[in-house]
Amino acid sequence: MNEKEIIARARELFSSRIGDDGAVIGNQVITVDMLVEDVDFTRSIPLTFVARKSLAVNLSDLAAMGSKPEFAVVALGISEWARDGVEQFFVALRDAAKKYEIEIVGGDLSLADKLTVVITAIGRVETRPLLRSGAKPGDRIYVSRPIGGSAAGLHLLQRGWTVDGEPPAGIGYAQREFALSAIRRHVDPEPEVELGLKLARIPEISACIDISDGLSTDLQHLCDASGCGAEIERERIPIFPDLLGSGASLGVRVQDAVLHGGEEYALLFTSPLRESDLSSRLGRPAYNIGRMTSERGLVLKENGMARPLQPRGWDHLAR
Amino acid sequence: MNEKEIIARARELFSSRIGDDGAVIGNQVITVDMLVEDVDFTRSIPLTFVARKSLAVNLSDLAAMGSKPEFAVVALGISEWARDGVEQFFVALRDAAKKYEIEIVGGDLSLADKLTVVITAIGRVETRPLLRSGAKPGDRIYVSRPIGGSAAGLHLLQRGWTVDGEPPAGIGYAQREFALSAIRRHVDPEPEVELGLKLARIPEISACIDISDGLSTDLQHLCDASGCGAEIERERIPIFPDLLGSGASLGVRVQDAVLHGGEEYALLFTSPLRESDLSSRLGRPAYNIGRMTSERGLVLKENGMARPLQPRGWDHLAR
Repeated sequence: MNEKEIIARARELFSSRIGDDGAVIGNQVITVDMLVEDVDFTRSIPLTFVARKSLAVNLSDLAAMGSKPEFAVVALGISEWARDGVEQFFVALRDAAKKYEIEIVGGDLSLADKLTVVITAIGRVETRPLLRSGAKPGDRIYVSRPIGGSAAGLHLLQRGWTVDGEPPAGIGYAQREFALSAIRRHVDPEPEVELGLKLARIPEISACIDISDGLSTDLQHLCDASGCGAEIERERIPIFPDLLGSGASLGVRVQDAVLHGGEEYALLFTSPLRESDLSSRLGRPAYNIGRMTSERGLVLKENGMARPLQPRGWDHLAR
Repeated sequence: MNEKEIIARARELFSSRIGDDGAVIGNQVITVDMLVEDVDFTRSIPLTFVARKSLAVNLSDLAAMGSKPEFAVVALGISEWARDGVEQFFVALRDAAKKYEIEIVGGDLSLADKLTVVITAIGRVETRPLLRSGAKPGDRIYVSRPIGGSAAGLHLLQRGWTVDGEPPAGIGYAQREFALSAIRRHVDPEPEVELGLKLARIPEISACIDISDGLSTDLQHLCDASGCGAEIERERIPIFPDLLGSGASLGVRVQDAVLHGGEEYALLFTSPLRESDLSSRLGRPAYNIGRMTSERGLVLKENGMARPLQPRGWDHLAR
């Protein structure tokens, strides 16, 4: 079974609550994420970042559901090399929890060959939960911020850059600045907690998901849940600063990073509201990248041409 | 840091709610447990049992807190060898969830070198949560059922027995019957969910914990939280059927299995009530094994002699 099949089977066997970024139970949202060494991060990433990211991915799920972070528990599989870093990991986690006002109330520890972090987070729904379902044909599709940076950061890390933006060889100032910010976006993502709460308060927001698996794949998830298709315009997608310039010159495949790059943790949402109206109600930009359609499937418009867009984002079980 | 130090540090950094079998938040209890291949089980254990046990250990925590199972989420790190067993794992988990009336509402999947199962469970407190703190000097100490079977089962598995009770060499009928039931106790433990709820309804129950790390170690945890000591009588501890006979003849160190063997998932609790009164109120036996004392430390009485008892149960981070 691939990931999609496994999730479909889990829905059948366990609960129809499965399928959103979190499960709604009463006025709570519950979500869990697992980060594993050599799958989601490597030993070269300082534990401070691993701790923050493991919380951030959960906070992003809570944000996508429009819920306010409340409580979390942490299961930690500690590998030998990480043993002396537990204090550092804990302090970073404590600081991140403080920042986002989530209380870490429990946990479990085990030995493990690979460092494994599983955080389960609970959020409170103030007004209503945001779901992946609910988008209607004609609704505008929005992303919350420029994307493509995380995939670019991963690309650079895989090519020898360090988390401090130290290049593998002599490199220009602009490229190094870009690399620093892209790598930071990848290793230390910022969940859209405030935005999620604001979106939940706007009744005209019809659906929401976070971009964890890539724009194409997460848009497909949203379409599947809403029973729609989508058409997006390449030129309207906001692109991570200098990705087109320095990113491309550093070998990043820009189109892939923007359309399919995972671990962005921007929000992807839909609404009949216009971009200017929505942005002013949010007090920050929302980027309209296209529209929901009644015909299933994704379409990408570029240079006046329309072509089918295959979801080619992250499958957690692909090798 | 060893496990105790890490938990103490986590309490300082995160929340004073840390330290019981689960964390109490409002009228909910939340708990998380991590099971890792080659630490908590081996590949020779069928996935059906791994699934059930991973839920059972959480249900036991909820039971120890006197709460009713409600919801759970599952993070699954899937190793290559376990990939084809996901369906079998899910079905077993679904059946166990049905039996204990807990709804599995979400999850996450990842690749992993070693099969890793992390379940977070939420229970509802009907009357009051049971805590480790609250025991008073003079309170009687109870266990909920005969113990030592799980450690005996582990011993046999490590010596070549299979989960079906197939012996490594020719063996007698009674020994095989014993082996079957001890191995079953180890791989397929039964959480005391009903009992936990009953105990919470009896105001005279002063403290409770489940025996996951071993009687000595969990009694020490209860004493630490309650600021007491404890004195237990070897002859009063109920022993897993035929452990003294067949178990001993199969090389199980009976004293160690009973006093220090982990993964029993019996409940250990305290109350001023007498054994006969408490048993009749519970409608099932409760085994009084000793008393709480004002002097710190554990004491074991045996053959009329008293000696200090060192907690020698499971440390999740010891090698």
